[in-house]
Amino acid sequence: MIHGTEYVLSQDPFIVRRVVRWGDCDPAGVVFTGRFTDYLLGAVALYTEHLAQGASSLGAAHGVDTPCRGMSLSFEGTLWPRDEIDIHCTIGSVRTRSYDVRCVAVRTDGRPVFTATFSPICVRSDARVGTDIPPSLRAILEAHQRTPASPDMPARA
Amino acid sequence: MIHGTEYVLSQDPFIVRRVVRWGDCDPAGVVFTGRFTDYLLGAVALYTEHLAQGASSLGAAHGVDTPCRGMSLSFEGTLWPRDEIDIHCTIGSVRTRSYDVRCVAVRTDGRPVFTATFSPICVRSDARVGTDIPPSLRAILEAHQRTPASPDMPARA
Amino acid sequence: MIHGTEYVLSQDPFIVRRVVRWGDCDPAGVVFTGRFTDYLLGAVALYTEHLAQGASSLGAAHGVDTPCRGMSLSFEGTLWPRDEIDIHCTIGSVRTRSYDVRCVAVRTDGRPVFTATFSPICVRSDARVGTDIPPSLRAILEAHQRTPASPDMPARA
Amino acid sequence: MIHGTEYVLSQDPFIVRRVVRWGDCDPAGVVFTGRFTDYLLGAVALYTEHLAQGASSLGAAHGVDTPCRGMSLSFEGTLWPRDEIDIHCTIGSVRTRSYDVRCVAVRTDGRPVFTATFSPICVRSDARVGTDIPPSLRAILEAHQRTPASPDMPARA
Repeated sequence: MIHGTEYVLSQDPFIVRRVVRWGDCDPAGVVFTGRFTDYLLGAVALYTEHLAQGASSLGAAHGVDTPCRGMSLSFEGTLWPRDEIDIHCTIGSVRTRSYDVRCVAVRTDGRPVFTATFSPICVRSDARVGTDIPPSLRAILEAHQRTPASPDMPARA
Repeated sequence: MIHGTEYVLSQDPFIVRRVVRWGDCDPAGVVFTGRFTDYLLGAVALYTEHLAQGASSLGAAHGVDTPCRGMSLSFEGTLWPRDEIDIHCTIGSVRTRSYDVRCVAVRTDGRPVFTATFSPICVRSDARVGTDIPPSLRAILEAHQRTPASPDMPARA
Repeated sequence: MIHGTEYVLSQDPFIVRRVVRWGDCDPAGVVFTGRFTDYLLGAVALYTEHLAQGASSLGAAHGVDTPCRGMSLSFEGTLWPRDEIDIHCTIGSVRTRSYDVRCVAVRTDGRPVFTATFSPICVRSDARVGTDIPPSLRAILEAHQRTPASPDMPARA
Repeated sequence: MIHGTEYVLSQDPFIVRRVVRWGDCDPAGVVFTGRFTDYLLGAVALYTEHLAQGASSLGAAHGVDTPCRGMSLSFEGTLWPRDEIDIHCTIGSVRTRSYDVRCVAVRTDGRPVFTATFSPICVRSDARVGTDIPPSLRAILEAHQRTPASPDMPARA
């Protein structure tokens, strides 16, 4: 059995397992709100690295930069030190210039913890100017799109 | 002139000034996405402390706990080391059990950087069970509600 | 092959593998000084959890609390995004009330990155008052002591 | 009265005031060990910025880079949310290529919290190769050197 803090549990579906550390928690004994962003960004980084198939980043693999345009988190469960969660990552909407990475975090017994959307936007690599999603990147994103009702996502997503 | 990293610039309207540190920035030279959550939570903490009028926390002042139910950030500008931003904090929607703290961050010349909504939900202080916003807390929140068009908010908000 | 950010590579000797993330690095392109403390504390937490053999913490397993009395880090190598390091953890000096967790971080080819000492001190679990290392804890610490010249440590340690 | 999280209280002697935030503390209710590094690096950044007298960094002002060669912290007091500390910053030893920034953190009533040493090393700005401290930088460092017994440092330093 792997013993770690953050690692890829499965590639298809793409799931990141994360273990809550003592230092992630606040005086109420539960994970501090700000730490959830670390959980989200850590999972998104592993997922987009997976989609980059060996390139240094997903954007670099397709000739663009992909700064974050927005992110949102909705909290449904509380976590204590040593709790484990599985963060399921898929691609949601793919628009003209931006797209959504959707993350659904559940306990190992399936109880919900949080859902989040992380939305990169494509900009030219030589200037911070918006540009369309390159066709090669769009093809990869669409291949990983899942609807919320998809069978490899928890029912509640 | 005050020289610091995060401090209250004005109480009415409530504005937190934040200076970008080198360690907040990533290899692209700009503030790392995850660090914006620190900027947001730092400003929210100073604002709710202000609303608590001396109590140890806003919830404690009214007999409830106020964990975060959700938060969202929308990024409109890029920041480099030593840049300064002013985070304007107000109360937005006040619902039955939850409410919105709205933050609008602009450069000192008014150019937009990010907008964010941080939404606490009231739970009983003796159990993590949802409860209505206490009337005394509701009165304070409503007194600080501002509509986006309010004159003490930047026009773009 | 495991793909993750921080996980236990080996239990005896105890080695934590850590992968550098983009967000760990600063505008110089290399790991920000402050992030090394996260690498150190993450490895120490996994190691002392290992020594706790199933208890919620090493101190709790022996009836004491073990706050940090001091820590020091010495940097010998620079790290870039995606670099991997192996953090070798052992017990160094064991004194009357405090002891040293020694960490030696090297690249996977053995080149040095940093060495660090993390020194907990025993305090009573009912009051923040210093107390001797309990005999049961001392026995475990001494069983994991390694001298710097020990064969399971890199020669440079 | 200034209300903030981290700001310069005095320039000569150089003192940074820091207020403990809820999110800095762990389930024991006190500041998490790893957060003290943030306190240290925050104060060091404000201090070296002061010594840089307007340049983008102290190293840049003198034609070198100044990565960290080592740091150590010794903890003597425990901090709870809303506690305030004053971090006194001076220059300690100045060697051939490296020097020490010394920080002594005390409560506002003078009780000790932590002492720390942060040691940059000069490297060429065009290559990560060690180089002597430039004479112009050495002059500034020596002008800010204080011995531990200096009257503007707490007696215990």
